[in-house]
Amino acid sequence: MGMVDLETGKETCLGVDELIEAAREMRAWDVLSIHCAGSGHPGGTLSIMDVCAALYLRVLRHTPKDPHWEGRDRVFFSAGHKAPALYVSLAKAGYVPLEETMTLRRFGAALEGHPHWLKLGGVEFSSGSLGQGLGFAIGHAVAGMRDPDADWRVYCITGDGEHDEGSIWEAVMSAPHYGVDNLVNIIDKNGLQIDGWTKDVMNIDPLPEKYRAFNWHVIEIDGHDMQQILNAFEEAETVKGKPTAIIAHTIKGKGVSFMENVAGWHGVATTEREELDQALADIGAPGFTKERVDELLGIGEEFGEKATAEIKASVPKFKRDYWWNSGDTMQVDMDATRNGFGRAMENAGEDPRVVPIHADISGSIRITQFEEEHPEREPRFISCGIAEQNMMSVAGGLSRAGLIPVTGTYGVFATGRCWDQIRTTICYGELNVKIAVAHGGISVGADGATHQSLEEISLMSILPNMHVSVPCDAVESQRASEYSILELEGPACVRFAREATPVVTTFDTPFVHGTANVIRYRGEQSRFVDAFEQKLSTDYESEGEDLSIVACGPMVPEAMRAAWILKEDEGLETRVLNVHTIKPLDRKALVAAAADTGVIVTAEEHQVGGFGNIIAGAIAEEKPYDAPLAMGMIGVQDKFGQSGEPWELMQAFGLTAEHIAEKALELLKQKK
Amino acid sequence: MGMVDLETGKETCLGVDELIEAAREMRAWDVLSIHCAGSGHPGGTLSIMDVCAALYLRVLRHTPKDPHWEGRDRVFFSAGHKAPALYVSLAKAGYVPLEETMTLRRFGAALEGHPHWLKLGGVEFSSGSLGQGLGFAIGHAVAGMRDPDADWRVYCITGDGEHDEGSIWEAVMSAPHYGVDNLVNIIDKNGLQIDGWTKDVMNIDPLPEKYRAFNWHVIEIDGHDMQQILNAFEEAETVKGKPTAIIAHTIKGKGVSFMENVAGWHGVATTEREELDQALADIGAPGFTKERVDELLGIGEEFGEKATAEIKASVPKFKRDYWWNSGDTMQVDMDATRNGFGRAMENAGEDPRVVPIHADISGSIRITQFEEEHPEREPRFISCGIAEQNMMSVAGGLSRAGLIPVTGTYGVFATGRCWDQIRTTICYGELNVKIAVAHGGISVGADGATHQSLEEISLMSILPNMHVSVPCDAVESQRASEYSILELEGPACVRFAREATPVVTTFDTPFVHGTANVIRYRGEQSRFVDAFEQKLSTDYESEGEDLSIVACGPMVPEAMRAAWILKEDEGLETRVLNVHTIKPLDRKALVAAAADTGVIVTAEEHQVGGFGNIIAGAIAEEKPYDAPLAMGMIGVQDKFGQSGEPWELMQAFGLTAEHIAEKALELLKQKK
Repeated sequence: MGMVDLETGKETCLGVDELIEAAREMRAWDVLSIHCAGSGHPGGTLSIMDVCAALYLRVLRHTPKDPHWEGRDRVFFSAGHKAPALYVSLAKAGYVPLEETMTLRRFGAALEGHPHWLKLGGVEFSSGSLGQGLGFAIGHAVAGMRDPDADWRVYCITGDGEHDEGSIWEAVMSAPHYGVDNLVNIIDKNGLQIDGWTKDVMNIDPLPEKYRAFNWHVIEIDGHDMQQILNAFEEAETVKGKPTAIIAHTIKGKGVSFMENVAGWHGVATTEREELDQALADIGAPGFTKERVDELLGIGEEFGEKATAEIKASVPKFKRDYWWNSGDTMQVDMDATRNGFGRAMENAGEDPRVVPIHADISGSIRITQFEEEHPEREPRFISCGIAEQNMMSVAGGLSRAGLIPVTGTYGVFATGRCWDQIRTTICYGELNVKIAVAHGGISVGADGATHQSLEEISLMSILPNMHVSVPCDAVESQRASEYSILELEGPACVRFAREATPVVTTFDTPFVHGTANVIRYRGEQSRFVDAFEQKLSTDYESEGEDLSIVACGPMVPEAMRAAWILKEDEGLETRVLNVHTIKPLDRKALVAAAADTGVIVTAEEHQVGGFGNIIAGAIAEEKPYDAPLAMGMIGVQDKFGQSGEPWELMQAFGLTAEHIAEKALELLKQKK
Repeated sequence: MGMVDLETGKETCLGVDELIEAAREMRAWDVLSIHCAGSGHPGGTLSIMDVCAALYLRVLRHTPKDPHWEGRDRVFFSAGHKAPALYVSLAKAGYVPLEETMTLRRFGAALEGHPHWLKLGGVEFSSGSLGQGLGFAIGHAVAGMRDPDADWRVYCITGDGEHDEGSIWEAVMSAPHYGVDNLVNIIDKNGLQIDGWTKDVMNIDPLPEKYRAFNWHVIEIDGHDMQQILNAFEEAETVKGKPTAIIAHTIKGKGVSFMENVAGWHGVATTEREELDQALADIGAPGFTKERVDELLGIGEEFGEKATAEIKASVPKFKRDYWWNSGDTMQVDMDATRNGFGRAMENAGEDPRVVPIHADISGSIRITQFEEEHPEREPRFISCGIAEQNMMSVAGGLSRAGLIPVTGTYGVFATGRCWDQIRTTICYGELNVKIAVAHGGISVGADGATHQSLEEISLMSILPNMHVSVPCDAVESQRASEYSILELEGPACVRFAREATPVVTTFDTPFVHGTANVIRYRGEQSRFVDAFEQKLSTDYESEGEDLSIVACGPMVPEAMRAAWILKEDEGLETRVLNVHTIKPLDRKALVAAAADTGVIVTAEEHQVGGFGNIIAGAIAEEKPYDAPLAMGMIGVQDKFGQSGEPWELMQAFGLTAEHIAEKALELLKQKK
């Protein structure tokens, strides 16, 4: 037990008082790293920190110098948002310098917003989508049990909110079935999740009785009492034939006065320096002087600035700087598309049939605007907790009673986590369920790959009976959402994004579900939006433009900016098609664009081809045989995202107007 | 309570003895309808039949003449494979004539293999994929609780094997959270699932303790004791503030001597008339004389023959009948692609790292060939039960220990039910997990839409790091599977089908993962396979063919047959591309086919465009600007499947060589 030096055989194993002090220091690094990152999850990292100190500095047999040593005990962080606790634990144990925690969530750092095992030794598994780590740990424990040479043990760290997920209960059921007694699941039961107290969001109690009814050995402890923690791990080692659950009763935000037991500190960083200083003072770890803190914050900032500069240098260059709001003209307002969905929810609430279903991150996706200014609507929404599958089934049942359920969560979880429910219950049943597919795209930012939804256009468009909207800005998001909720009969989803993006339409811009808009650049104006003419594709007559850019979502503003660049730099005329409705698709507009211009660039903030191939397919099937065509696609190049600043990621992943314009110029060479 | 005549107000409510006799008769209709269909699920329909009789003939307040009457109590069959029990219940109650049950699972019948609420009044919900009905019932119960005019109650029927599914536990957790006391979940605890005893496949016991720990009111009964059944429903009505679980201890196959407690009778029909007669004799319902049974079976057969003839008439006609094995030449062997996977599993088992993970339908997907002839391998496989999400997480954990987990189930469940686990844990983590995507396509047959996987190429191909194979026949399935399991490092899936399809390759046919094969028709032979030359695309030189057909999976044999038709009928030369690897894609071969022939027909047994759009995208991006192109796609036209005979469905959904050839001729008109 303890950290092993493989060369000397020496084992380091801290005593109780040392562990208490180590946990104190680790809490300081934790809030400091999150502050420096500007985002992250202090609440649940502070609640689990005493357990982490015990594990990494005493209980585990491991060797920081050789993270892949076969003989090591293994810890799987199922609750991936607790990453900073994992990172400071690894750092404190000696895997990396403690100062490296200051690079948390920066582009290019090993310390992704949610942990990725391929980037950092000591991270055993890539997580961030809840409810997957326990099954993973169980699979690993089975492998260990079968290997006669393996005497290592397996630890899993789960959250209490995470116990809303059915996949957790599948895993909980399976572990005793396999008889794995080399496995301990530590449940950080701090009683809070994003939307509030777990008992209110989705009551998981009585948790010990549940685990016992699932045939586990259960130990309940005060998760901040170091001796109890150590005793629990010792007891777990003696249990034979079944796994052990350590239910650690903890305090979310433990150690920082203003964070303790406050749900709002689940996933936000301290922003003011005074807040940080207060947090550090509350924690009381020695050595974090003003100067030292300044120096440490500087490490992160310097790392970030270097990354930003490198990325910026990689973006294609044009005669001028055409970046958003870079000059005195072409000014644009910014608003997040999710806000448009929020306003739609507020308006749709006037229809008494509308029933929002929350999935714990309801404020973040703005579904809560339904009731925020309308307290009388409070009794109408339903909380499903972090249980996307059930959320869709419940929505189906509500719709069969004539209601209009609107549910949603981050795109990965709103589509892929419950795809079979959407397929069979909702789409096959042709039910009137509305799905908000939030946080679409790489621009989600610092949370990293697990939260950047890049595949959901494919997942939803392939489903019969589904309607798929990907509106271009906050205004269009509001209109597409209102239309989908109140006018459309049948399954519908609307994909929108997290980050503020240019507002390029008004309520006077034509908007017809299923009909693309043609957008034409008409010359610089003081306001960006006024520089463009926008028409329904059905009202548009070809002007024999040089090329077409076919885009959806917040790539439409990028396509418009590309049209501006191409005209001003090269004198080229561009037809931008805003395909805000992917299903049903405006095939006529696409075929016309191909036939009229002969050059098509598709632009999607998505795995490339998810949108582009749909466009290519429609054009290929209906384009005149002899019409020549050059086609190119802008999108994420078949890889997962990573942490970084939203706009930095758009640049790094080749998703800006400059990349579109560069691709267009390349294709135009074929035309001549 | 009871069946209500809305005109007269009269209520019909059977007594205990009448219910017992009704259940007896319903059992006879049940086995008879399944025998007539040639497939279906006798085991679990016989175990739930007493509960069904009690519900539909006494407990429910409903009116068969008006299935959508607002005041009705509602029953949701979460275990959709119990459909025949639902149908005979509805028929016995008077929704449809009892004789209509003889059309079960026939093409065009309302009685789909798994129930579809849009097809038959009294079916409240479309199910077939397990674990979705309880949440649906809960959503409906919430709607009822909120509606002051609603005094109806909600019943859900679930299976015990179904309790492997995490989505069930999400639902179980949520119902008491919402305080729904108008809801009863009846668990048909017959102790068996497809792979064997539930305690062996995945132990769900102690089930009453679980439900109590999830805050339900629990009643345990003998599910074959009518008085206990009625008492339980009465008790449930008195429970306030929480839902009720009735755990009905039952006998799978109850009433038929040779079916009782035999897992093998989960999902197969009696085949011999003697078997059926024995079953009917065991059940002992009066009136099922030999003549009457003959007459009833005739109803189903006549219905089926009419459908078959209508479908056949809709298939495009050519100068001769080119159907499989229709003449003396061009004879072909048939074997199911799943058998190829099975043989690969047997061979791969020689590598000690290979660990199969079963998901309850393991025999059906042939993963069991790993151990069937090798009893010493028995201890190596892992049973996960019907818990696809956990199955993927466990697989991930095994692979991180250096093993090669191979898991899989029917395509819908192997990809869409656990998509987020595949994405985040497996693909993002770049883990060496292999997924068998079985039962791909409409040719799954009588099970119907829920089991016909038509979207999984899209779901898997859009994932970074995933390798996707769709082999064309049983031989290629074996080779693709062996390669994916033993040679490939990283996430990989192989899609294959249920039905026997033509064997069109041999072990001498070139096969290179990631390289398409060019197939050319060279003139009629006694054996179909000998009539074709097959080369790697990298070895092929254009012969300036008239057109190309780009196909994957068992659509490759159809494409080959289309080439035969087009040559013999029209003198046209066809380049068939067998794209057995969709990811990575052989883009060069596609672009060459487009440039060389100018006409491309894609063929997929999948929602159209899932494969076709990928092909269109690749060609669009790389084809020479001026090269003319006509393109068309064969596939399922953006709709769900339905029950029917496999080959009948291929015809009805436009997926045969004749349809491909017709599309080719249409496109060739553009080329002139």
